[in-house]
Amino acid sequence: MTVTLPAPLLTDYLVRVYHAAGCPQDEARIVAEHLVEANLRGHDSHGVIRTSGYLTQIRNGVTKPGAAPRVVEEAPSTAVIDGGWNLGQVVATRATEVAIEKARATGVALVTCFNTMHAGRVGAYGEQIVRAGMAAIGGVNTPGARLVAAFGGGHRRTGTNPLMFAFPGDTPATPFVLDMATSVVAEGKLRVAVNKGVPVPEAWILDGDGHPSTDPRDFYGSGANPRPGTLLPVGGASSGYKGFGLNLAVEALGGMLSGAGTAVEGARGTNGLFIMAIDIVRFTPLATFVSLMAGLGAHVKEPPYQPGVSEVLLPGESERRMRAQRLRDGVPLDDETWKQTVEAAAALGVDAPDVASL
Amino acid sequence: MTVTLPAPLLTDYLVRVYHAAGCPQDEARIVAEHLVEANLRGHDSHGVIRTSGYLTQIRNGVTKPGAAPRVVEEAPSTAVIDGGWNLGQVVATRATEVAIEKARATGVALVTCFNTMHAGRVGAYGEQIVRAGMAAIGGVNTPGARLVAAFGGGHRRTGTNPLMFAFPGDTPATPFVLDMATSVVAEGKLRVAVNKGVPVPEAWILDGDGHPSTDPRDFYGSGANPRPGTLLPVGGASSGYKGFGLNLAVEALGGMLSGAGTAVEGARGTNGLFIMAIDIVRFTPLATFVSLMAGLGAHVKEPPYQPGVSEVLLPGESERRMRAQRLRDGVPLDDETWKQTVEAAAALGVDAPDVASL
Repeated sequence: MTVTLPAPLLTDYLVRVYHAAGCPQDEARIVAEHLVEANLRGHDSHGVIRTSGYLTQIRNGVTKPGAAPRVVEEAPSTAVIDGGWNLGQVVATRATEVAIEKARATGVALVTCFNTMHAGRVGAYGEQIVRAGMAAIGGVNTPGARLVAAFGGGHRRTGTNPLMFAFPGDTPATPFVLDMATSVVAEGKLRVAVNKGVPVPEAWILDGDGHPSTDPRDFYGSGANPRPGTLLPVGGASSGYKGFGLNLAVEALGGMLSGAGTAVEGARGTNGLFIMAIDIVRFTPLATFVSLMAGLGAHVKEPPYQPGVSEVLLPGESERRMRAQRLRDGVPLDDETWKQTVEAAAALGVDAPDVASL
Repeated sequence: MTVTLPAPLLTDYLVRVYHAAGCPQDEARIVAEHLVEANLRGHDSHGVIRTSGYLTQIRNGVTKPGAAPRVVEEAPSTAVIDGGWNLGQVVATRATEVAIEKARATGVALVTCFNTMHAGRVGAYGEQIVRAGMAAIGGVNTPGARLVAAFGGGHRRTGTNPLMFAFPGDTPATPFVLDMATSVVAEGKLRVAVNKGVPVPEAWILDGDGHPSTDPRDFYGSGANPRPGTLLPVGGASSGYKGFGLNLAVEALGGMLSGAGTAVEGARGTNGLFIMAIDIVRFTPLATFVSLMAGLGAHVKEPPYQPGVSEVLLPGESERRMRAQRLRDGVPLDDETWKQTVEAAAALGVDAPDVASL
C-alpha cells in the first residue's frame, strides 16, 4: 500500500517538520527539498524515508540543526569544512557553494567535509554545480561502514561509496549526472528484493560464508545462515578490481582528505564528502562544450541496440523521466514510511496533510 | 618465442633510437623510459611494441618530436596545453609538471592537452604526481575511436577511455594506482585471447550483429561474421550503465575540456588528456594520509577470501610484483615486436643490442 502526495505539499510539510525540530527556516527548506527531489527521481532510499531517523538523531543531540559549517583549512582552490554535525544536506549544499566560488576564482576547486550527518543523494550537489555552468566530480564514504567486500574478499569491508560525475548536458534541463554506488548495486536494491521475495542476479552478493548467493536475505543473514553476507564491488569476476579500486579512491578522497575517517573506524561524521567544481569556461566556451555533449549524446544513442533494448539512456535520463512522472502524478510513499513520518512529525506538533482528501 | 632483455639495456637502446628519429635527448629518454616502464608492469600493449608505429608517425611527419608543449589557456588552477603533435609521453609529462606546480600554489589543479600523440599508460602520470606527495585523477579519451558500445547499444561508439586515480600508499615505493579501462577490459586482452585461441568470458563483447559472444575473433570480425563486434562497458548486464557513464565522463573531461574532440570525430590529437593534481597537505598532513592508507590497506586485506582466492591486492600491487620480477629476470618481448623494433631502428642507423650474447 502506498500514499501518494503532490511534491509541493510534501515539501511544505517537511519544511514545517524540520523547522519544528529546530532547523532554521532556510535549512529546513534545503533538507525538505533534497529529500523530496530524491523521491521524485526514484531514489526513495535517500528520500522522505529518512525523516524519522533524522528526527531521532536531532532529538538525541547527535545532529545539531543550525550549526554553521566552518572552513577549517583553506587554500585558493581548496577547503576543508567542519560541518558541526549539522544535517548533511545543509553542510554539503554549503560546501558546494564554496567549491563553486573558488572554482570561479581559480578554475577548479576541491572541498571536503567532516562532522557531517547523512548527505543524501550526492548527485544533487553535482546538479547544483552544473546549474552554475560547471562540471562536477564528487563522492562520499561512510566512515566505519561495512557493506562491500574487497575484490576477492569474502566479507564486508567498506561502504558502498558512491562516486559522482556531472556535466552540463545538451540543454539546461538535461544535465549529465552519473551518481553510482561503487558496489555492484546500492544496498537499497537488496532490501527491495527481500521485500518482494525475488532473487537477485548472480555476482551481486556473497552469503555469510563468502559463497556466491542469489538470495538477497543472505546479505542480512537469515534463518539458514545468520551470518550477514556482503555486497560485491562493481565489475564482477573479471573486472571487480575496478569497482574495488574506485571504492577505495572514494575512501581516500571522501574519508581521508576530509578527516572524517575511513571504513576502518568512524568518528568524525556519518559521511566523508569530497566535492569538486570545474569551471568549464577556463577550458572552452560553454556553448562549445554543450554542443559537444549534444553531439556525443546523439552518437551513443544511434541504433542498433542489443536484443530487447529499445533505446540508450544517458546518465540522469531515467531519473528525469521518473521526476516528470512523479511531478505529474504525485510522490508515492509506502505506508510504513508515511506512518513513521507522520508519527515523528506529530510528536513535534506538526499535523500531517489530510491524505484522504487528496 | 620471446627475446628477453635487461630493462636498462632496452631503455638505453630506445633512447638512441628515438634520438636518431629526431627527438631531443631529454624527450627520447622520457619516451624510452615510459615504454619500458609499461613493459615492466606487464602492460605490454603500451610498451616497446609501440615503437615501430611511433617511428612511422615521426617519419610521416604526423608526430613532431621536439615541438614544445604550449599553454594556450590558463587560470591559477587550470591550463590547456597544445602539445604541438609531439609524442604523447612528452606532452603528458610536461602537463603533469604544470598540474603539480599549480596544485602546489593553489591546492588543486586540472590540466588538459590536445594535439597530442598516444600518451601511453596514464597511470605513469599518476605516479609522477604521487612522487610529488600529491593525489591524482586523470584519464584519456581517443577522439574518433570506436571500440566500446553504449550500455544497451549493439555497436562500437567510443574508445576504451581509461580513468586513473593515484594516491601515496603506505610507503613511497607502494603507491595506490588505479588505471582502468572503462570498458570491461582493454582491447589488448582480446588480442591476447585471439592469439592464444581461447574464448573470453561472457559479457565482454558482442559480435557484429550485436549478439553476445565469447569468441574474441568476433570483435575484429572473422570468416563467419566479417562485421566487427564491440567491447562492452564495465559493469555487465546489471551495472553496465556505470561503466558507460564513466566512459562518457572521460570523453567530457579528456576530449571536451581539452579541445581534442570526442569519439564522434577526431582531429586535434590521438589522445585527449586530463590530469588533476591534489596537494594533500592542504587537507591533512601527508603522514596522516599515509597512515590512513596503510590502515585501510590492512583492513581490506583481512581474510576470509572467496574460494580459490589467496589474497586481496590493492590497485597497482600486481603491477609492482611484475615490475620486480622483470627488473630481475629481464623484459620479455615477443619475436615480432623485437623484429619490427630492430628493423625500424636499423633504418635510422641504430644497431640493436646483441641479444644472442645476453
